[in-house]
Amino acid sequence: MSRVAIFIGSLSDEEKVRPCSELLSTLGISHTFTVTSAHRSAERTEKLVEELEREGCQVFICAAGMAAHLAGAVAARTVKPVIGIPIAASALNGMDALLSTVMMPPGFPVATVALDKAGARNAAWLAAQILALSDPELDERLRAARATFAAEVEAAAAKLEAPKA
Amino acid sequence: MSRVAIFIGSLSDEEKVRPCSELLSTLGISHTFTVTSAHRSAERTEKLVEELEREGCQVFICAAGMAAHLAGAVAARTVKPVIGIPIAASALNGMDALLSTVMMPPGFPVATVALDKAGARNAAWLAAQILALSDPELDERLRAARATFAAEVEAAAAKLEAPKA
Amino acid sequence: MSRVAIFIGSLSDEEKVRPCSELLSTLGISHTFTVTSAHRSAERTEKLVEELEREGCQVFICAAGMAAHLAGAVAARTVKPVIGIPIAASALNGMDALLSTVMMPPGFPVATVALDKAGARNAAWLAAQILALSDPELDERLRAARATFAAEVEAAAAKLEAPKA
Amino acid sequence: MSRVAIFIGSLSDEEKVRPCSELLSTLGISHTFTVTSAHRSAERTEKLVEELEREGCQVFICAAGMAAHLAGAVAARTVKPVIGIPIAASALNGMDALLSTVMMPPGFPVATVALDKAGARNAAWLAAQILALSDPELDERLRAARATFAAEVEAAAAKLEAPKA
Amino acid sequence: MSRVAIFIGSLSDEEKVRPCSELLSTLGISHTFTVTSAHRSAERTEKLVEELEREGCQVFICAAGMAAHLAGAVAARTVKPVIGIPIAASALNGMDALLSTVMMPPGFPVATVALDKAGARNAAWLAAQILALSDPELDERLRAARATFAAEVEAAAAKLEAPKA
Amino acid sequence: MSRVAIFIGSLSDEEKVRPCSELLSTLGISHTFTVTSAHRSAERTEKLVEELEREGCQVFICAAGMAAHLAGAVAARTVKPVIGIPIAASALNGMDALLSTVMMPPGFPVATVALDKAGARNAAWLAAQILALSDPELDERLRAARATFAAEVEAAAAKLEAPKA
Amino acid sequence: MSRVAIFIGSLSDEEKVRPCSELLSTLGISHTFTVTSAHRSAERTEKLVEELEREGCQVFICAAGMAAHLAGAVAARTVKPVIGIPIAASALNGMDALLSTVMMPPGFPVATVALDKAGARNAAWLAAQILALSDPELDERLRAARATFAAEVEAAAAKLEAPKA
Amino acid sequence: MSRVAIFIGSLSDEEKVRPCSELLSTLGISHTFTVTSAHRSAERTEKLVEELEREGCQVFICAAGMAAHLAGAVAARTVKPVIGIPIAASALNGMDALLSTVMMPPGFPVATVALDKAGARNAAWLAAQILALSDPELDERLRAARATFAAEVEAAAAKLEAPKA
Repeated sequence: MSRVAIFIGSLSDEEKVRPCSELLSTLGISHTFTVTSAHRSAERTEKLVEELEREGCQVFICAAGMAAHLAGAVAARTVKPVIGIPIAASALNGMDALLSTVMMPPGFPVATVALDKAGARNAAWLAAQILALSDPELDERLRAARATFAAEVEAAAAKLEAPKA
Repeated sequence: MSRVAIFIGSLSDEEKVRPCSELLSTLGISHTFTVTSAHRSAERTEKLVEELEREGCQVFICAAGMAAHLAGAVAARTVKPVIGIPIAASALNGMDALLSTVMMPPGFPVATVALDKAGARNAAWLAAQILALSDPELDERLRAARATFAAEVEAAAAKLEAPKA
Repeated sequence: MSRVAIFIGSLSDEEKVRPCSELLSTLGISHTFTVTSAHRSAERTEKLVEELEREGCQVFICAAGMAAHLAGAVAARTVKPVIGIPIAASALNGMDALLSTVMMPPGFPVATVALDKAGARNAAWLAAQILALSDPELDERLRAARATFAAEVEAAAAKLEAPKA
Repeated sequence: MSRVAIFIGSLSDEEKVRPCSELLSTLGISHTFTVTSAHRSAERTEKLVEELEREGCQVFICAAGMAAHLAGAVAARTVKPVIGIPIAASALNGMDALLSTVMMPPGFPVATVALDKAGARNAAWLAAQILALSDPELDERLRAARATFAAEVEAAAAKLEAPKA
Repeated sequence: MSRVAIFIGSLSDEEKVRPCSELLSTLGISHTFTVTSAHRSAERTEKLVEELEREGCQVFICAAGMAAHLAGAVAARTVKPVIGIPIAASALNGMDALLSTVMMPPGFPVATVALDKAGARNAAWLAAQILALSDPELDERLRAARATFAAEVEAAAAKLEAPKA
Repeated sequence: MSRVAIFIGSLSDEEKVRPCSELLSTLGISHTFTVTSAHRSAERTEKLVEELEREGCQVFICAAGMAAHLAGAVAARTVKPVIGIPIAASALNGMDALLSTVMMPPGFPVATVALDKAGARNAAWLAAQILALSDPELDERLRAARATFAAEVEAAAAKLEAPKA
Repeated sequence: MSRVAIFIGSLSDEEKVRPCSELLSTLGISHTFTVTSAHRSAERTEKLVEELEREGCQVFICAAGMAAHLAGAVAARTVKPVIGIPIAASALNGMDALLSTVMMPPGFPVATVALDKAGARNAAWLAAQILALSDPELDERLRAARATFAAEVEAAAAKLEAPKA
Repeated sequence: MSRVAIFIGSLSDEEKVRPCSELLSTLGISHTFTVTSAHRSAERTEKLVEELEREGCQVFICAAGMAAHLAGAVAARTVKPVIGIPIAASALNGMDALLSTVMMPPGFPVATVALDKAGARNAAWLAAQILALSDPELDERLRAARATFAAEVEAAAAKLEAPKA
C-alpha cells in the first residue's frame, strides 16, 4: 500500500523529481512513483487517483512543466491533499509551470512548492509533515531530521572558515 | 446545431467574453455559449464536449483566468480545434492565464489568442476562419469584413486630422 | 483548542484573508485568526507557534505581502504543515510575495496557494483536506461541498443561457 | 499542391521548426517549408501568401523570434487561419516572441502555440485538426495517433517503475 | 510638407500620443499626425510611407499597443529613421508593446522610446534631435529648451522647500 | 573626424558590440570605438562627448549592461541623437539593461535598439539612417544594402528547400 | 547642517517620498529634502552633492522612477553611502525603476530599498541605522522604536480578535 | 574583532560571495565570513548576530538565493545596517532572490545590491562606505580606490583602440 503517490508528466522529468522519491524512502514512507499525464493519459490519471485513493493513498504529488495542468487535474478528482512541483521545461525558466500550478481557483488547492529539485525535496518533506499529523513515529523522525540541519550548517561553516592550505 | 461552442470557466468572465459570442452572431455562426469548469465541473465539461462534438460542433473556444486549465482539459478530450482566451483575473495581470493556456505540451495544441476582450473577438474571427475553409459563403463574409477595416481606419484618420472646432 | 492558526502580517491584509477564516468556520474547523509579523514581532511569532502547536494546532496558514517571509519563519519553527498565501501589496502585483513564499529551500516547505482572496479560500480548503485525512466526518463534509460545485456551475450556465428580457 | 505552408523568418530557426514539417509529413499532409521574413522580404512574403493561397493552401504556420512580426504580417494578408510559433532567439528567453505573436489586435488572430520545438509540433497538430474538419480520413489518423499517447505513457511508466538492475 | 509623420494604430491611442504632436508644433516642426494600422490598413500604411517620404518626410514616429507591429512594418518600407512609442493597451502593462517594438531583427532598427506619454514626448525630442543635425536653427531651439530644464528643476525645488503655510 | 562614437561601458562588452563597429566600417562611416563608463569615468565621459561633438560627431551609440546608465548620461550632455544598446550582463537576461536604457524621462530620449549583437548591428543601421538624411551617397548605400536582403532570404529558402543528399 | 539629503527626481514623487522626510524628522535627524534630476539638472546634482558633503552630509537618499539613474549619478560623485528608492512611475509598475536602481556595477553601490512609500520609510530607517553607528543617542532611539513594533502588532491582533459588535 | 560579518545561506554560494570577502580584506576591514541559514539554523543566526554585535560588528552582509529570507531575518534582530546580496540559485534567474531581499516592510530595511558577484563586490564597497563615515583613514582608501577607476577605464580604452596585430 502506498501512502503517497508521485506522478510525473513525462519521463524527462524523472531526474529532477527522483530526490522526492528518495527522500520519501529515507523517511520510510511507502509510495508509488509513476508517469501519467493530464492530457496524454487523462483516463489513466483519473483511474490511478481513484485506485490509489481506494487503497489508502493519502497525499498526491504531481510534477509537470510548461502549462503544468497535472496537479490541477488530480486535485479535481480527489479531496486528498495535492502537492505540485513546477518543473522548468521550456525557455521560460519555469515561470509557466509555476503560475499554472499555483494559481488554482477556489475549491481545488494545489500546495505548490519550489521549482525543480529543491521543490521535489520539499514535496517529500511536506507530504511527510502531513502524514506525521497522525503518525507519531514519523513526527519523531521529522524532528530528528530537523535537528541535524543545524549541525550541517555548522559543519559547512567550519569548512568555510578553515584556513586554506 | 452549434458549429462553435464557447465555454467560460465562471460567470465573472461573461463580460469579457460576450464580444466573442456577439461577433459569431454577426457572422451568422450558430454557437453555444455556456459555463463549465475544468475543475468544478470536470464531468460536465467532458460530457458537453462529447455531446456538442457528436451534434456537429467544429470548434471549441475556452476562456479562463488564473491557472487557466479549461482549454487544455477540452483539448485532451477532442481532436477538434480548441481556441483559448486567457482572462486577466488575478493580480498578475493575465500572465498566469496566458502561460497556462499557451504552453501546452505536444499533441494537445490550444490556439491561443490575446488576453481579454481583444482575444475574445479574435477567438471568434479565428473560429470563423477555420469554418470558412469549407464554407465559401462565410469566406465571402470574412473577406467583406476585412474590406471594411481599411475604411474604418480612414474614417478614424479623418476624424483625427479634422480641425478642432 | 484551535486546529488551525491563521496569521496575517498586518491588519491591512485582513480583508483579503477573512474568506479563509469564514470558510474554516463554515467547515466547522476551530481556528485562531491573529496578527503577527516575521520581523516586527519575531518573538511573538515564535511563541505563538510553540503555544498553538502545544495546544494541538495542526496546520499553520500565513498570509503576507511584499518580501513575504512570515510563512517561512513559521516553517522554520514547526514540523506541522505551513500554508502560505501571498498577498499583492506593492506595485509589483504580488509577484514579490509569490516568489518569497514559494521558493523555499529544501527542508522547509511552504504549501503555497494562489494570490489574495482566491488563495485565502484555497488555504482553508487545503487545511481542511489535510485535517480530513484523520477526520472522517470532515472528509464527508468536503465531499459534500465538492458535490455542490457542479450544481453551482450548472446554475451559472442556466443563468448565462437564459434568454435576456 | 501544399495544404499547409510553414514559414520561418531565418535559417537559424530551422532546427526548432523541423519537427513541425516532419509531423505534417507523418500525417500525410502536403506542405511547403520555406524561409521568408516580415521585414527583409516583405514582398516575397506577400507574394508567397497570395500564390500559395491561390494554389489551395489552407493553413499558414509562421515561426519567428524576437519581435516576431511574421505571423501577424501573414495574417494581415489572408483570411486563412494563421498559426504562430514563437521562437526563443534572444536573451529574453522567448517572452519577446511570445508576446509579439499572441497579442494581436482584433480582426487578425494568430493561433499561438508554445515556444520552440514543443510549439512546432503543436502547430502541426493544430493544422491537422483544422484540416481534419473536412477530411474524415485525416480525422481518423488523428484519433489513431491520440490512441497511442496513452500507451506511450504506460510504457514510460513501466520503464520508470522497473526495478533498477 | 511634413518633416515628420506620426502614425497611431488606433484612435484610442490619441490621448497618449498627442503630446508628441504638441511638442513638435512647439518646436516648429511641420508634421502629419494620422491613423494607420499595420494590419487593418496595410496598404494605406505602405502608401502613406511612400508618399510622405517622396514629399520630404524625414522621420517616422509610430505608436501602437499590444503586439505593436506598426513601427516594424514602416521600418520595412523606408530607410528613413523610424521611432517607436510602445503603448500600454492590454492587461500586460505595455511589456507586450515594448518587446514587440524594440526587439527588431538586424537591418530594420526601430528607435524605441519609453512607454506612453513620456515616450510620446521623447519621440518628438528625438525626431527634433535628428532633424537638428542639418538644421542649425532647430539645434539652437533644442539647446535653448535644454537650458530651461535646470531652471524648472530649481523652481520645483524652491516649491518643495518652501515652508508650508 | 568621427561621425559616430561608440562607447562601451566595459571591455567585456566588446565582443557583443564589435558588429556595430564593423558594420559602420562596411558602410564607410568614420567612427570612434572606445570604453567609457557612466560611473567609473564620469568625467572622461563628459569630456569625450564634448570633444567628439566639437569635432563633428553626429551620433552617439552607447552599450552597457545591468543598470545601464551610460546612454542616459551621454544624453544628458548632448542634443545629438543617442542610441542605446542594452547588453545582457547579469542573471536577469538583459531585462535590467533594457528597462534602464529605454525608460528615459521626457527631454532625454535614448533611441533604444534590441539586446546584444542584434541590437549592435541595428545601432549601426540606425546611425547610418540618421546620417543618410543629409548624405545622399550613404542613402544610396543603405538602399543598395536593403536590396540584398530579399536575395539573401531567397538564397536561404533555396538552401532549406533543397533536397537533402 | 544636514546629516542626510533626500533628492527626488520630480515634484510628482513628493507624495510617495514625504514619509521618508517625516520619519527622519521624527528621529531628530536634520536633513535636506529637495528636487534634482540626473538628466534635467546634472550640474545642480553634482554641485548639491559636493556642497552638502562639504557641509557634513553623511547619507544621500535618491528617489526616482522609470529608468531611475539619479541614485547612480549621485553614487558616482561621492563615497558617502547612497540609498535608492525606486518609484513606480510608468505602466511597468516600478520594475523599471527597481532594476535601474539596484543593478549597479561594481564600485558604485546603491543601497536599494523597496518601491514607493514602504521604501521611503525604509530609506529613513536605513539612514538612521547608518548614522547611529557613531551616534549612541540615535542608536537608543532606534532600539526604542523597535520596542514599540511588537506592541503595535499586539494591538492589531487584539483589534482583529475582538468580537465584532 | 570583526567590523563586518558576511553570512551565506549555503556553501554553494561561496564562489559568488568570495569577492566580497576579498575586497574587504583588500580594504583592510576585519570581518567574519561564515555560513548560517534563516531556516536551517535559525538559532545559530540569532546567536551569531547577538555575539558579533556585542563584539563590535557594525555591518551585516547576507547572501542567499531563492526565497532569500536571511537578510530579513538578520534585520529583524539588529539595528545595525544589513546589506543583502541576492543570489541567482534557481531557474528563475535570481528574480526570486532579488524580490525576497529588497521588498522588506517598513522598519526593517535591507540595503540591497545587485545579483551575484557584482553585488558581492558592491556589498563590500557599501560596507566600507558606511564604516568610512567614522574612519577617516578608510575614507581616504576609498577615495584612492575611486581615483584608480578612471585610469582603469582609460587603460581598457587604450587596449580596445590599439591597432590589432
